[in-house]
Amino acid sequence: MAQKPSIPKGTRDFNPEEVAKRNYIFNTIRGTFERFGFQPIETPSFENSETLMGKYGDEGDRLIFKILNSGDYLAKADKVAFDKKDSNKLTSSISEKALRYDLTVPFARYVVQHQNEIEFPFKRYQIQPVWRADRPQKGRFREFYQCDADVVGSDSLWQEVEFIQLYDAVFAALKLEGVSIKINNRKILSGIAEVIGASDKLIDFTVALDKLDKIGEEKVKEEMLSKGISEAGISKLQPLFTLSGTFESQIESLKSILDTSEEGKKGIDELAFINNAIKALGLNTATLQLDVTLARGLNYYTGAIFEVAAPKTVQMGSIGGGGRYDDLTGIFGMPHMSGVGISFGLDRIYLVLEELNLFPETVSKSVEVLFINFGDKEALFCLKAIKKLRLQGVNAELYPDSAKMKKQMNHANKRNIPFVVLVGEEEIKSNNYSLKNMVSGEQFKVSLEALVKHLK
Amino acid sequence: MAQKPSIPKGTRDFNPEEVAKRNYIFNTIRGTFERFGFQPIETPSFENSETLMGKYGDEGDRLIFKILNSGDYLAKADKVAFDKKDSNKLTSSISEKALRYDLTVPFARYVVQHQNEIEFPFKRYQIQPVWRADRPQKGRFREFYQCDADVVGSDSLWQEVEFIQLYDAVFAALKLEGVSIKINNRKILSGIAEVIGASDKLIDFTVALDKLDKIGEEKVKEEMLSKGISEAGISKLQPLFTLSGTFESQIESLKSILDTSEEGKKGIDELAFINNAIKALGLNTATLQLDVTLARGLNYYTGAIFEVAAPKTVQMGSIGGGGRYDDLTGIFGMPHMSGVGISFGLDRIYLVLEELNLFPETVSKSVEVLFINFGDKEALFCLKAIKKLRLQGVNAELYPDSAKMKKQMNHANKRNIPFVVLVGEEEIKSNNYSLKNMVSGEQFKVSLEALVKHLK
Repeated sequence: MAQKPSIPKGTRDFNPEEVAKRNYIFNTIRGTFERFGFQPIETPSFENSETLMGKYGDEGDRLIFKILNSGDYLAKADKVAFDKKDSNKLTSSISEKALRYDLTVPFARYVVQHQNEIEFPFKRYQIQPVWRADRPQKGRFREFYQCDADVVGSDSLWQEVEFIQLYDAVFAALKLEGVSIKINNRKILSGIAEVIGASDKLIDFTVALDKLDKIGEEKVKEEMLSKGISEAGISKLQPLFTLSGTFESQIESLKSILDTSEEGKKGIDELAFINNAIKALGLNTATLQLDVTLARGLNYYTGAIFEVAAPKTVQMGSIGGGGRYDDLTGIFGMPHMSGVGISFGLDRIYLVLEELNLFPETVSKSVEVLFINFGDKEALFCLKAIKKLRLQGVNAELYPDSAKMKKQMNHANKRNIPFVVLVGEEEIKSNNYSLKNMVSGEQFKVSLEALVKHLK
Repeated sequence: MAQKPSIPKGTRDFNPEEVAKRNYIFNTIRGTFERFGFQPIETPSFENSETLMGKYGDEGDRLIFKILNSGDYLAKADKVAFDKKDSNKLTSSISEKALRYDLTVPFARYVVQHQNEIEFPFKRYQIQPVWRADRPQKGRFREFYQCDADVVGSDSLWQEVEFIQLYDAVFAALKLEGVSIKINNRKILSGIAEVIGASDKLIDFTVALDKLDKIGEEKVKEEMLSKGISEAGISKLQPLFTLSGTFESQIESLKSILDTSEEGKKGIDELAFINNAIKALGLNTATLQLDVTLARGLNYYTGAIFEVAAPKTVQMGSIGGGGRYDDLTGIFGMPHMSGVGISFGLDRIYLVLEELNLFPETVSKSVEVLFINFGDKEALFCLKAIKKLRLQGVNAELYPDSAKMKKQMNHANKRNIPFVVLVGEEEIKSNNYSLKNMVSGEQFKVSLEALVKHLK
C-alpha cells in the first residue's frame, strides 16, 4: 500500500491534547450530572434496525448507518427488491442492525426493556457517540458524542428548575461566562396559535416565528400570511414582536395576549413557577431568558423547551438544548412515561472554550518529569526513583534509550515536559538527582525525598 | 409495536451499577497508563474498509462488521458479483466502511497518517470499543472494550520492564493479588525449533507446545511427530517438559538446551535482562514467571511475549497479554517501526473482581442524600441546601414530587441512598434539617453547616 492511509470523511482522529481537552469537558459534565443525582447507563453502539427505523422521519431513516448482515447475506435478500435493484427496499433484508442515531430512542428502548428493574423516577445520563450519514461540513461530523441527562416518571416542574441549575453549574465549572439559557413552553406556542385562530397551523406558525431573529418582523408576517394565517390573527401577535424587558414583564405581556387560552395560561404558570424558583435559588454565571420564538423539534416537546446560547462574543449556534416530553416510550408500547431532558453539544462547547482560551493550562500536560537515560546502570537507578514518584501520583517516565543527551532533551521540550532529571555516575555515588526546570533552565541537586516533594 | 424491544445478540446494556464498576476499572487502568507516561489517542469507530480488510486473515475478514453504503448503493454494485448473487464478492462494492476490529491496526494507521506530528518514541494508550461478528457465547461479545498501551519507535528492553511494572501497578491498585505475569520470547521459541531441526515448522511446533498444560507431555509429543518433527528432535526437548523452579534456574536449563542457537541465546539474554531489572525494582503483588510454552499470535511478535493469568483461585482465561513486534506499520508502507504493547481484558477483569468481591463498596453509591419533598415551599427551602451541598462535592437530590412520605422513603431505600433529609414547617421555622441515617435509622436535627459537614 503506497498511498498514505486515511479515515472516512466526517470522522476524526483525536491526538493526546485533543483527547485531554475533550475529557476535561466530559468529566465536568459527568461530575455535575452525578452531583445532581443522575446515574450513567450505556447502550450498545448498534441496535436492531426495527428499534431505530421510523423514529426520526424519512430523512432520519436515510441518515442511519446500516450494518450489512454477516455471511451469505444475499441468500436471504428480498427477491423482488433484488431483481428490481431497489436499494431502498432491499436494505431491510440484508441488514438487521444499525448504528445508533441519537441517545433518546435507545434510552426509550432501555426503559421499556428494563422497566421492571428500574426504580422511577429514573434520572439517567448517557455520554456516548452517535453516527449520522449527514453530509460532513464545518462542525458537523458523522461520528460525534452526545451528552444527555433525562428524568422519566415524574411531571414535577422542579426538574425543569434542576436542569437550569445544572446547565449553570456546568458552564460555571467550565469558567464559561455569559451563557444564556433560553426557555419557552410548548403550551404558550399552542396558546398563541389558538388565540389567533391558527391551532391547525401550529407548525407553520412556529417555524415562521422561530425566524424572527434572522429575517425580522415583516418577513415573518409575510410567511405567516402565505401559510394561510389570517391578517386579523397576525395583528393580534403585535405585542409578541415587541416583547422585551425582564422575564417578569414579558410574562405580563403574554398574559394579556393569552387571556382567552386555558392552555396558554397553563404555560405561563409553568414559566412563572420556574422563573420564581430560579430567582430564589440564584444562578452562578448564566442567565435565564424567556424566548417565545424558541420551538426546537416542537412535535416532540409538550412543556418546557430549552436552548443554551454561547456568550455573545462568540459566533456559535446553540451549545445545548432540551425540554419536556409526555410520551417517551409510547413508540415501544409503554404509554404515559413523561420526562424531561437536556443535552450538551460537546463539539461546539470545545470550539467555544478554544476560542475564548478557557482550557486550563494543566489540561494537556501529561508527563511531569522525564528521566534522561545515560546507560543501563543509571537507568535502573532512575527507575527506582520513578517508581516512588508514581506511587505519589506523579506522572514520570524514563527515556527508553541511552541516546545522545541533546536528543533526549529535545524530546522533553517537544512534549512540553516541564522537568527532566539527570543521573550520572556522580549522582549515583552521592545518591542525588539533578533536577532541571525546562522552562527556567534552573538546575539543582536534590535527594530523593526532595525530588518527590518538589514534583508532587 | 406490541413486542418488548430487545438488543442485538452479543451486545449489552449496562445499568448504573455496571457502568460504575466498569468505570472503576477503566479509571484505574487509565490513571496508571498516565502515571507511566502514556498519552491517550482516539480513532473513529469505523475505518475505510481497505484499512482493515486483509489484516486479520480470512477468518478476521469474515468477522469484521461492514457498513452498507448510503443512498442507492446498488447503482454502484459490482455487476458480475450481483448477477451471480455472490455475497462475498459483492461486499466491497456496496460497503466502503467497516467497524474497527481491534485497536492495533487503527493505531498503525494513525502512526503512519500522523507520522510528521508525532514525537517518537510515542507512548500511546487507547481505551475504546471494538466489534466482531463472532458467535456470542459466555464471556464473548460482539461489542467489547479493549485497553491497549504501546510504545513505538524504540527497541529498548526497558519498555518491557516498564510494562511488567505497569501490569503489577494496575492489579495492585485493583487489590487483585496473586496475578502472575507470564513472559516468553519469540527468539527462544525460534531457537528451540532451530536446535531440534524444525525451523521450518515453527508454528506447528509452538502450537503443540502451547497445549502442554492442557493435554500433557505425551500428547504434545504425538502431535509434534504427526506434524513431521523428528523423533531425535523431540528427544532434545526433554528438559523443556520438566522445566521448573525459579526464573533463574529455568534460564540456566534453557542455556543448556539452546547453546548452539545464536537467536536462542539472544532470547535468553533478553529474558535475563528483564528478570534482573524486575528483581532489582520489585513488584507489589504480581509475580513474574517464565513460560516457554507461551506463544500467543506468534507471527506477530518478534521478542517478548506476555500473558497475564488471574489468581489461581479463579477459573478464568488470561486477563491481559501483549508483546514486542518489529514492524507495526509496514502494512501501511512505513517500515522499521518497532514497538511493544500490552492490553487488559476488561470483561474478564470485571468477572474476577466480581467473583472475589473486590469492587469497593463505594463504587456504585451514586447519591449521598435524598431530600424528601413535602410541598413547594419546603422543596424550595431544600433546594437551597442542596445547592450548597453540591458545591461541596456532595451528590444530592430532591424527590421531585410531594408524594406520600412512605413512597419517598422507599425510593431512597431501593436506590441505596444512605441519608435522607426531612424538612417540614418546623424545620423551616427553626432553620434546621432533620437528617436520617437510612442504615442505622438514627435521626437528628442539624444546622445547614452541620449538614454539609456531616455529608461531605
